[in-house]
Amino acid sequence: MKPLILITNDDGHAAKGLHTLCEIAVEVADVVVMAPERNLSGTSHSITSSRPLRVNEIRKTDRLAVHSCDGTPVDCVKLAIEYFCPRRPTLVLSGINHGSNSSINVLYSGTMGAVIEATALGFPSIGFSLLNHNPEADFSGAVPSVRQIIATALEKGLPHDISLNVNIPRLPADQIKGIRVCHEARAQWLDSFEKRLDPQGRPYWWLTGKFQCDNPPDTSDEWALANGYVSIVPIQPDFTHYPSIAELSNTFSHA
Amino acid sequence: MKPLILITNDDGHAAKGLHTLCEIAVEVADVVVMAPERNLSGTSHSITSSRPLRVNEIRKTDRLAVHSCDGTPVDCVKLAIEYFCPRRPTLVLSGINHGSNSSINVLYSGTMGAVIEATALGFPSIGFSLLNHNPEADFSGAVPSVRQIIATALEKGLPHDISLNVNIPRLPADQIKGIRVCHEARAQWLDSFEKRLDPQGRPYWWLTGKFQCDNPPDTSDEWALANGYVSIVPIQPDFTHYPSIAELSNTFSHA
Repeated sequence: MKPLILITNDDGHAAKGLHTLCEIAVEVADVVVMAPERNLSGTSHSITSSRPLRVNEIRKTDRLAVHSCDGTPVDCVKLAIEYFCPRRPTLVLSGINHGSNSSINVLYSGTMGAVIEATALGFPSIGFSLLNHNPEADFSGAVPSVRQIIATALEKGLPHDISLNVNIPRLPADQIKGIRVCHEARAQWLDSFEKRLDPQGRPYWWLTGKFQCDNPPDTSDEWALANGYVSIVPIQPDFTHYPSIAELSNTFSHA
Repeated sequence: MKPLILITNDDGHAAKGLHTLCEIAVEVADVVVMAPERNLSGTSHSITSSRPLRVNEIRKTDRLAVHSCDGTPVDCVKLAIEYFCPRRPTLVLSGINHGSNSSINVLYSGTMGAVIEATALGFPSIGFSLLNHNPEADFSGAVPSVRQIIATALEKGLPHDISLNVNIPRLPADQIKGIRVCHEARAQWLDSFEKRLDPQGRPYWWLTGKFQCDNPPDTSDEWALANGYVSIVPIQPDFTHYPSIAELSNTFSHA
């Protein structure tokens, strides 16, 4: 029996990046898609509990079943695994995201929220992102890297409890130098909000911000991407910082 | 000059848990509150980019300024630090959440999303949660522990780049045995969605789920809470799993 791959994203079921990922996945697997109805970028690991969810079937062939859902990317993963996958998925994929999820952007990303959820549920999972926000972005340069990473993950598996956060530079395929396994670059979004006044003189604030990452080390994803490499960051769903437990025990346990 | 404490939550500015946290914080600091207009439980690390944000002043005294915002808990932290704090906050607090954020619940929590954002921005930050979902929950048992943890954090500081996820059992203060610094218990939410049919016979799905955590080790938060201790888990905003980088480099870099 062929492997089964479950695919979602946070840009919505109609996004070009999702279609590209489906085309690559159906070369090697049966594919189930459950993706948000609309763009839900920036929804991180959100779940929907205040209202029920609906699902629409978008199209279905022998190898590919595409559904949309009015929930978040994390809702999509949970619901698809429980109700829409005919068997246990071999791999859960998310993307290809329109825009970077490198460095601390992983915190905000619905694409990566879905990936981390799948890993927490015990499924090997990979998120793919292209460094191009444009809805009409050209994904052709990313295709060989995505195909190769999926093939390697299917052949060799992934470490238990670890997701992959894959980011791909905005370059033609023949200008991509290779793949680097990295850590998140340390960075910040500064000047997050821009204040404006409405026609009545009342203030409102738009999210904006400047991404600041000075001199990222050559072991980081930002360095890899700036130097023409695909970056892979291993991500853990357990947020505990184990090295601090002893120090904090001294500080707090006897306080 | 007194310390300045910034407070937010994900239950909304009117929540009883937030009022309790404010009362404790104003004993030792000037306090700015920027909290969501309404309940945003389960919004994790979401940000709002598709529309601008509005802010309302709820009340203001010499020591306490309370604002609501129509954005997420993460939006609240970013916006308050940039526009509503008269000086750099000494500490950012979130909660007291109505309900547990122990174990993998930290993934979904808007309360903890705000805390992780504050840490990523360079501010010492603590999230507090009481194991009681009720909007009318009795927070009196939690007050001494919360007061003690805030005092210790102000006096001794927190490790750089580390947040604290504090969960408090639903017990009278004199039945709480103490504080334990822990790791997240490994757990899963199973049977996440319940399928129902509407009056026209069409399906819809409600988020639900059974929290499954079998035999948590005595080093974990679930064990601490089940045994009458307050749990503190140190949380890192960098999701990289560093120990996997070498193994994955062998698998992928030469693939």
